[in-house]
Amino acid sequence: MIFVANSTALPLVLLAEQFAKLPGIGMKTAQRLAYFVMSMSEGEAQEFAQAIINAHSTVKECSVCCNLTDGGVCPVCSDDLRDRTVICVVESPKDITAFERTNEYKGVYHVLHGLISPLDGITPEQVRIKELLERIRTGNVNEVIMATNPTVEGEATAMYVSKLLKPLGVKVTRLAFGLPIGGTLEFADEVTLFKALENRNEI
Amino acid sequence: MIFVANSTALPLVLLAEQFAKLPGIGMKTAQRLAYFVMSMSEGEAQEFAQAIINAHSTVKECSVCCNLTDGGVCPVCSDDLRDRTVICVVESPKDITAFERTNEYKGVYHVLHGLISPLDGITPEQVRIKELLERIRTGNVNEVIMATNPTVEGEATAMYVSKLLKPLGVKVTRLAFGLPIGGTLEFADEVTLFKALENRNEI
Repeated sequence: MIFVANSTALPLVLLAEQFAKLPGIGMKTAQRLAYFVMSMSEGEAQEFAQAIINAHSTVKECSVCCNLTDGGVCPVCSDDLRDRTVICVVESPKDITAFERTNEYKGVYHVLHGLISPLDGITPEQVRIKELLERIRTGNVNEVIMATNPTVEGEATAMYVSKLLKPLGVKVTRLAFGLPIGGTLEFADEVTLFKALENRNEI
Repeated sequence: MIFVANSTALPLVLLAEQFAKLPGIGMKTAQRLAYFVMSMSEGEAQEFAQAIINAHSTVKECSVCCNLTDGGVCPVCSDDLRDRTVICVVESPKDITAFERTNEYKGVYHVLHGLISPLDGITPEQVRIKELLERIRTGNVNEVIMATNPTVEGEATAMYVSKLLKPLGVKVTRLAFGLPIGGTLEFADEVTLFKALENRNEI
């Protein structure tokens, strides 16, 4: 119980506890959100609850790339104009949204749904690496772009996957790391600056 | 539509839009929360949706003080040990939780469910002032503590309500304003410091 329950109605306490389970939502915010739900109309509250149920029951993984979709195959995989010879490997469906926003990438994706992290008990079998290898064995793939985050787990996963892919005769690349556009040297951390220096290009 | 919908499943977009309606939740956070719901088990998602419906359908206003409760009369109003001659008037049920946390206040409450704010179109008829006057006319009340926030609307509401209450022969008081405990003079704003000086007490 996160509040003084004796002055707060129990269903409100339970609702606040549900909100508090969400990432980045603390106890005070959860309480505020619960009171906000009370200020909604009956119809709005029903709509909110239904959206949770709907999303959960109709959205499944794409049978090709493991992205989340409400059809059998996601819109990217079923788009005939996408280049199926290039696969961009990402950690989660959120990352696909970020790439699509650039409007530049024309290949397809593969979602791992996690990163290898022995400390958190996440082994290579728990992420969708098997499915990726299967796609490369059966399809005509020229290049796999490892687009996991530049963190310890992201780097380790990229290295692990690339070692499995190279024997299959596919080109494996990694996203470039360097200064972010619009950033300043003054505020760049040491590792970013080192990477920017190491990967410098002739102009 | 807040995302690039063509790469995101529609039920997920709709769920994110529901989260984005909540106070303090922006578009990016709403998207993150929607993806988090997808990572819940089917049972957890059902429980979350049910908590919204339950809170909305079972929690109503207390027939005495207008606090939110799942019974007819709230736990404070039905507690025989509370002093019914003192009524603390607050803006919202959240404020009762704050007072109860002090473990010092032994009187009862009255929730206005809003503050008078002509600019936002909230007139005295839209907050629970009528119900408060009725309580004072019919009950044996000695003191009404105006505990609205120290904002323009809070002050105006306190003034308005006190003018209506005084002819009924009841003592009307206002919370003390001054330096918060644990704060420092250096960071106190001018108005708070002025109030602290004005309301100084002999030691």
